[in-house]
Amino acid sequence: MGIKFKVLKESTETNARLGLLETPHGIVETPIFMPVGTKATVKTMTPEEVKALGAQIILSNTYHLYLRPGHKLIEEAGGLHEFMNWHGPILTDSGGFQVFSLGDLRKITEEGVEFRSHIDGSKHFISPEKSIEIQNSLGSDIMMAFDECTHYPATYEYAKESMKRTTRWAKRCKNFHKDWERQGLFGIIQGGMYKDLRRQSVQDIVSMDFSGYAIGGLSVGEPKELMYEMLEFTTPLLPKDKPRYLMGVGTPDYLFEAVINGIDMADCVLPTRIARNGTVITSRGKLTIRNAKYSRDFSKLDPECDCYTCKNYTRAYIRHLFNVNEILGPRLTTIHNLYFLIKLMENIRKAIKEDRLLEYREEFYKKYGYTD
Amino acid sequence: MGIKFKVLKESTETNARLGLLETPHGIVETPIFMPVGTKATVKTMTPEEVKALGAQIILSNTYHLYLRPGHKLIEEAGGLHEFMNWHGPILTDSGGFQVFSLGDLRKITEEGVEFRSHIDGSKHFISPEKSIEIQNSLGSDIMMAFDECTHYPATYEYAKESMKRTTRWAKRCKNFHKDWERQGLFGIIQGGMYKDLRRQSVQDIVSMDFSGYAIGGLSVGEPKELMYEMLEFTTPLLPKDKPRYLMGVGTPDYLFEAVINGIDMADCVLPTRIARNGTVITSRGKLTIRNAKYSRDFSKLDPECDCYTCKNYTRAYIRHLFNVNEILGPRLTTIHNLYFLIKLMENIRKAIKEDRLLEYREEFYKKYGYTD
Ligand SMILES: [Zn+2]
Ligand SMILES: [Zn+2]
Repeated sequence: MGIKFKVLKESTETNARLGLLETPHGIVETPIFMPVGTKATVKTMTPEEVKALGAQIILSNTYHLYLRPGHKLIEEAGGLHEFMNWHGPILTDSGGFQVFSLGDLRKITEEGVEFRSHIDGSKHFISPEKSIEIQNSLGSDIMMAFDECTHYPATYEYAKESMKRTTRWAKRCKNFHKDWERQGLFGIIQGGMYKDLRRQSVQDIVSMDFSGYAIGGLSVGEPKELMYEMLEFTTPLLPKDKPRYLMGVGTPDYLFEAVINGIDMADCVLPTRIARNGTVITSRGKLTIRNAKYSRDFSKLDPECDCYTCKNYTRAYIRHLFNVNEILGPRLTTIHNLYFLIKLMENIRKAIKEDRLLEYREEFYKKYGYTD
Repeated sequence: MGIKFKVLKESTETNARLGLLETPHGIVETPIFMPVGTKATVKTMTPEEVKALGAQIILSNTYHLYLRPGHKLIEEAGGLHEFMNWHGPILTDSGGFQVFSLGDLRKITEEGVEFRSHIDGSKHFISPEKSIEIQNSLGSDIMMAFDECTHYPATYEYAKESMKRTTRWAKRCKNFHKDWERQGLFGIIQGGMYKDLRRQSVQDIVSMDFSGYAIGGLSVGEPKELMYEMLEFTTPLLPKDKPRYLMGVGTPDYLFEAVINGIDMADCVLPTRIARNGTVITSRGKLTIRNAKYSRDFSKLDPECDCYTCKNYTRAYIRHLFNVNEILGPRLTTIHNLYFLIKLMENIRKAIKEDRLLEYREEFYKKYGYTD
């Protein structure tokens, strides 16, 4: 079976495209936003609830699952799908990003990365082979190659060295992985904010022929304009017949720009993280539910939303739940925020189909710009 | 409409009875266990999930809702049912228990209780009339009279004085409440661990003719034998044609003994509180899911349970969720524990119907005694 990708339609006005991504656990319509289930659960939610939102694929984290409960335990449980009771497609990251951002006292060598667990300080070593071994145990539908996400800012020299190492590591990942019917593997493009490095990275990574390609190292703190510039430069270099995944992007404007540049997949922890702090994304912009002005506001979070939360609860009630620290509060805002982004991508797919994506973006921005 | 109660069957072997309790928001089969939704939410759950467990009535707390978000706000929202989106029957306590146990620097006078909020230290005064006013704003189907829950141990003199005051307060509650079609009102029996005081309390309270009667001041730290003795003494003194509610009881053995003595309703925060700490009640006794021995246990929490949790998740997965502090953990154990007690009461009703309650109790205890 493995990973198959079909472009159904190319936008006439932009680089956007509609596609179908086939995985061993089901078909995903692209462009798609993937909710993140870091530790084998989309925070606060059951798998049935995630599915009810319209989510078609979720992301989970190799680094976190490797540390707790351990990939061997998950393998014994029958794999990640079985363990967490989500039977749709799963994409796992390589652990690279977390090793570099969460691991303490990391030591990078050609062989891999030595680091200490951010939980208990225990010493670990992850190599490209180890990352694939872990992801093989998890049994995700789509694995990611072990890379270094180049930080921002980085010198040209560092970005180049890091990109080259990511390429060598990608090769080792590809060689180590065996069962391509059961699990696909995506290569990751790095190169910092340097166009020639990005071009080189695409050339090297694409020549290895992965199941799909991700753009890493964007949305890491650089100005928005620079991010858009790199996105616009890099995406068209990728082969048209493979899925393209922009890592770590999940605000409405980034999602629009990503799709317009030809991105098919995106993920971000932000919508669920801000939800748990009581910030919700609405068609009229963001809203902080703890704000006193909502204490007697008996309207719904978003007048245009028909998610479970908006159909059943008022701002006043949700504010109360946050005020008294009730778990139902973050549950309701998480449902709304994820639904909002999933629905946005559904609308984006519809707009591509109808060749009016730019018009839809304009409508959306006009409303969204007004922050209540 | 108001509160109506019908005894459908009296057990031949015990004082247990089957009944139907009619309320403005629906009919409740008794004996029943009522999940507690302290702050206008059954902790971790949506109302639909509570309903799906088989819960027929929930309890909520006057003291907590009075402080946050305030009963006037809830009245503006259309009442508690509307505010929290639970459209079945609701019973509210009087706030008395919390004023005495949570309020700081309380000062009891004949008029009522002055106390400081446990949240922000602000000064408040709750009288019997104020308690009913708050409960009228909440719009619960069943209100409780404002009482003092006599602590244990208490001297005879104190228990007597306190019981007498509870009686005078009950009278004021009854006189203050107007719309008995919309909301019923239960009187509460006190009297500490003294039989003559309990008898006097029953006489005084029952003579006022409430919608039902609660036994308060039991399960407050006294030895089990003493609790059973007082329960066995007090319950038969209550009129047969009114519902009888034992407050604050929710372990399987207490529920069995309560029902056998003729109790129709019970509530307790314990099953949900221990669930959030990772302790689950099973047919084989209690189980602490954080225990390392469950890390690779791929069986369900309770082999005999068919709740959502047991149908879909393993002990190993639930233990992982608790280990990494994921909200889905407490959600899954809360579902299981509440389902366990609701199902237990369903089985108890069935056993009463079939005149084999004592046999069922024996079977249950035999299995339950074995703590895994
Ligand atoms: Zn919504
Ligand atoms: Zn269960």
